[in-house]
Amino acid sequence: MFDQIERGNAVGKREFNAVASELRTSLILTQQELRKADCPVLIIFGGVDGAGKSELAGLLNEWMDPRWIVTRAYGPRTRREKTRPEFWRYWVDIPPKGQIGVYLSAWYSQPLVDRVYGRLKKRRFELDLSRIKEFERCLADDGALILKFWMHLDKGQQKRRLRKLEKQPEQHWKVDEQDWRNWENYDRFIEVAERIIEQTDAPYAPWRLVDGGDARYRSLVVLRTVREAIGDHLARRARPQPAVQPPAAGNGAENGGGAAAYRGPTSRPPLARVDLGASVDKPEYNEKLPNLRRRLNELYRRAKDREMASVLVFEGWDAAGKGGTIRRITAALDARDYRIYPVAAPNDLENSHHYLWRFWQRIPRDGKFAIFDRSWYGRVMVERVEGFASEAEWGRAFREIREFEDQIVGHGTLLMKFWLHIDPDEQARRFQSRAETPYKNWKLTDEDWRNRDRWREYEAAVNEMVTRTSTAAAPWQLVPFNDKRHGRLDVLTRLCEAMERKLG
Amino acid sequence: MFDQIERGNAVGKREFNAVASELRTSLILTQQELRKADCPVLIIFGGVDGAGKSELAGLLNEWMDPRWIVTRAYGPRTRREKTRPEFWRYWVDIPPKGQIGVYLSAWYSQPLVDRVYGRLKKRRFELDLSRIKEFERCLADDGALILKFWMHLDKGQQKRRLRKLEKQPEQHWKVDEQDWRNWENYDRFIEVAERIIEQTDAPYAPWRLVDGGDARYRSLVVLRTVREAIGDHLARRARPQPAVQPPAAGNGAENGGGAAAYRGPTSRPPLARVDLGASVDKPEYNEKLPNLRRRLNELYRRAKDREMASVLVFEGWDAAGKGGTIRRITAALDARDYRIYPVAAPNDLENSHHYLWRFWQRIPRDGKFAIFDRSWYGRVMVERVEGFASEAEWGRAFREIREFEDQIVGHGTLLMKFWLHIDPDEQARRFQSRAETPYKNWKLTDEDWRNRDRWREYEAAVNEMVTRTSTAAAPWQLVPFNDKRHGRLDVLTRLCEAMERKLG
Repeated sequence: MFDQIERGNAVGKREFNAVASELRTSLILTQQELRKADCPVLIIFGGVDGAGKSELAGLLNEWMDPRWIVTRAYGPRTRREKTRPEFWRYWVDIPPKGQIGVYLSAWYSQPLVDRVYGRLKKRRFELDLSRIKEFERCLADDGALILKFWMHLDKGQQKRRLRKLEKQPEQHWKVDEQDWRNWENYDRFIEVAERIIEQTDAPYAPWRLVDGGDARYRSLVVLRTVREAIGDHLARRARPQPAVQPPAAGNGAENGGGAAAYRGPTSRPPLARVDLGASVDKPEYNEKLPNLRRRLNELYRRAKDREMASVLVFEGWDAAGKGGTIRRITAALDARDYRIYPVAAPNDLENSHHYLWRFWQRIPRDGKFAIFDRSWYGRVMVERVEGFASEAEWGRAFREIREFEDQIVGHGTLLMKFWLHIDPDEQARRFQSRAETPYKNWKLTDEDWRNRDRWREYEAAVNEMVTRTSTAAAPWQLVPFNDKRHGRLDVLTRLCEAMERKLG
Repeated sequence: MFDQIERGNAVGKREFNAVASELRTSLILTQQELRKADCPVLIIFGGVDGAGKSELAGLLNEWMDPRWIVTRAYGPRTRREKTRPEFWRYWVDIPPKGQIGVYLSAWYSQPLVDRVYGRLKKRRFELDLSRIKEFERCLADDGALILKFWMHLDKGQQKRRLRKLEKQPEQHWKVDEQDWRNWENYDRFIEVAERIIEQTDAPYAPWRLVDGGDARYRSLVVLRTVREAIGDHLARRARPQPAVQPPAAGNGAENGGGAAAYRGPTSRPPLARVDLGASVDKPEYNEKLPNLRRRLNELYRRAKDREMASVLVFEGWDAAGKGGTIRRITAALDARDYRIYPVAAPNDLENSHHYLWRFWQRIPRDGKFAIFDRSWYGRVMVERVEGFASEAEWGRAFREIREFEDQIVGHGTLLMKFWLHIDPDEQARRFQSRAETPYKNWKLTDEDWRNRDRWREYEAAVNEMVTRTSTAAAPWQLVPFNDKRHGRLDVLTRLCEAMERKLG
């Protein structure tokens, strides 16, 4: 693969200076255009040490306005980073729309080095690469431009480069034993790099291989590519997007796959299978609740000792009883160990990022609980039904959510998703009661009535959501809540059972 | 002190129910008013275990809209929290304007427990208390309402409470050995608590002592107080604020203290003392720069080994050369170990918090560099001169900034503040050059010209800033930058020397 890189390129000082001024100016203008656009740019430099990765990052910061550039490099995961899923540190760092993220090796560094030195088994290495693909596709689907440059030197070039640095007293510190050890493993590095590039080269995030032998040459190649790619991307986004064809009803394809797919005659949709008749009387409730609380408390303490994190998602119809249920759970936990996240419309900062960004920010560290009162599922419910997300957006969200949750579960975190289910009559009774009770009044808004009018649409969306995001590792828990007492006991029981299974 | 709490209060179920509905309704209405206000509310529950702290936090969440309430409790500092100044974890958690933060023990927990068990020397304990006062005053000055409830039980009551919990199988887990150990030390707890309350009782954050013996009684007392205090606070803030009298010129008092104080005949203002004639020729610069870079790199690696963090602040006239200087510093650092924070106008989320909040968020952890391209000093420069901050606001900022920096330095972090100084003629030449060079054009805005017109006002503000925020631990470094080469070498030299001193 690397044989095909054109070698021996060099650009003279005079030639460079002749074009530098125009290039700088156009980069600045391009960046100013980008500032107004609703997409971020990620520029990733991978490749051989000494091939100019950090020099290029420096040049981008010098030639463009550094206020709108975020430059990041990542070492081995710190203790704190290890208490969260692997991609957490990359997700929380993604640049907001209109800005540029410049990455040195980024998510490619650990798989490459660890694989070369045998610290990463093949299977895990391949999993890492598919995670990278998922991550980049997720951002690209949301409009991000992803530019990846692989800066190359051949073995002889790299040796000369390291030697030269060593000889200059004031540069000597840039070369250490590890650099020479890496150089000795040059062939292995190239072999692994080829695999990485092959696997992560994609139309939405293509690799560009660049000869890093000459500083002026590589600067011109990279900076021109950056300017042109951003310019093209902005032009493409300015044009009206071709409408995404919704797939034919019933085929359940990933993009689109209308809710009708789940209304077929062969199987009843998930919500229709929930038995809403279940109920528990007050004496039984009063007896069982404290026992469940104690059981949950014991499990919570075991989970804390074992440093197992828990993510609990509560979704459900308006007035189904999310708040009261959450309070029954937190009554068994120490306030230092959980956080409740009520999810409302995103704020400005959240809106300027991928919709999953704000949830990545809230992933709990090991041993802690994060409880979501509504969640990322808004994307395929309210945002879908109310038209806040396009069909392409909510259509691909099923896959994005599965990948997101897969990372949470893969980290060893318990993830439970509860749908609190009631029927329209029960909701009407509760709305009525809210309307009549002064201190409950505030809970009832015009929006609640509007949502109620669209019950069928929401129901179809929920049925599709449940079907398409119930995975083996994180199935939806559909809990009947026409009787709140029964519902709360049910949630607590399911939570305790899941924790018991997970803690062994 | 605790003798004065009225004891033996009890409220019957019927009496409670009779008033609960009205109280809930008015709490909700109060909260809705608060949502529109530009101040946060902090409700802190301290006191004896078993006196109802967490029950009250639960009730507040149940009776009000929990979407706008953030509930927090803090354990002993985690490893991650220990890599930052002590109050970092409280600062990053403060509620935004319009919202309520409910705190269980909060910043009072560690001083109390550690002092009781002799883990905290008297001097350090008193320092902790004054830090608490600074923190609360800082928030209150910014408009926050701070409500502090000390929930009390006498020794006999606490014993009965613990026994009762132990006897109920489903509550047993709430009591552990530590609770009984604390109970045995009851008298010592009370003694330390009295000292804490005495020292941290302030008009802007008064303590209210509440008999915690009866659940309904204490709920009514606390919730009524909350409702009334928020109502009063909002009413007070809605009235026009009495204008703060600027103190007479030249007295240097804390609030106000006009810039004129630093133009007296007896001493030349700081900026006038900077020798702008210094210069370095290109050969000397080219020789010295790489050596300084290497020296800085060695120091940076020692600092990393010793886990010493560094905060570098760059302020200076427009076009003085901040960006170029920062790049000369980062050239000696590994990109994984520093972050550059260009400080522009605050975003929405930042605006809904105390102005220091966004800087607290960016305090580096041990071993890392945070480099601020402009900083919190905007409060006493641009915000002052352009009238974005009121005289009361920028007037008290000198003290707030000293307290903020005191915590950074107190943690063991190196803090350096550079003022890059040029004269108006030099600035004019650089603006001219920017105007004439296509790729520098963007750096020059109308605002730059406007700021230039107010040179004298900015100069007076800077002189006052330098005088009032140059502390022994973090003095301002005024660096002549009419000659950029000299300026850069000077900054690098001062930085290296400070690191050497600090690393010993």
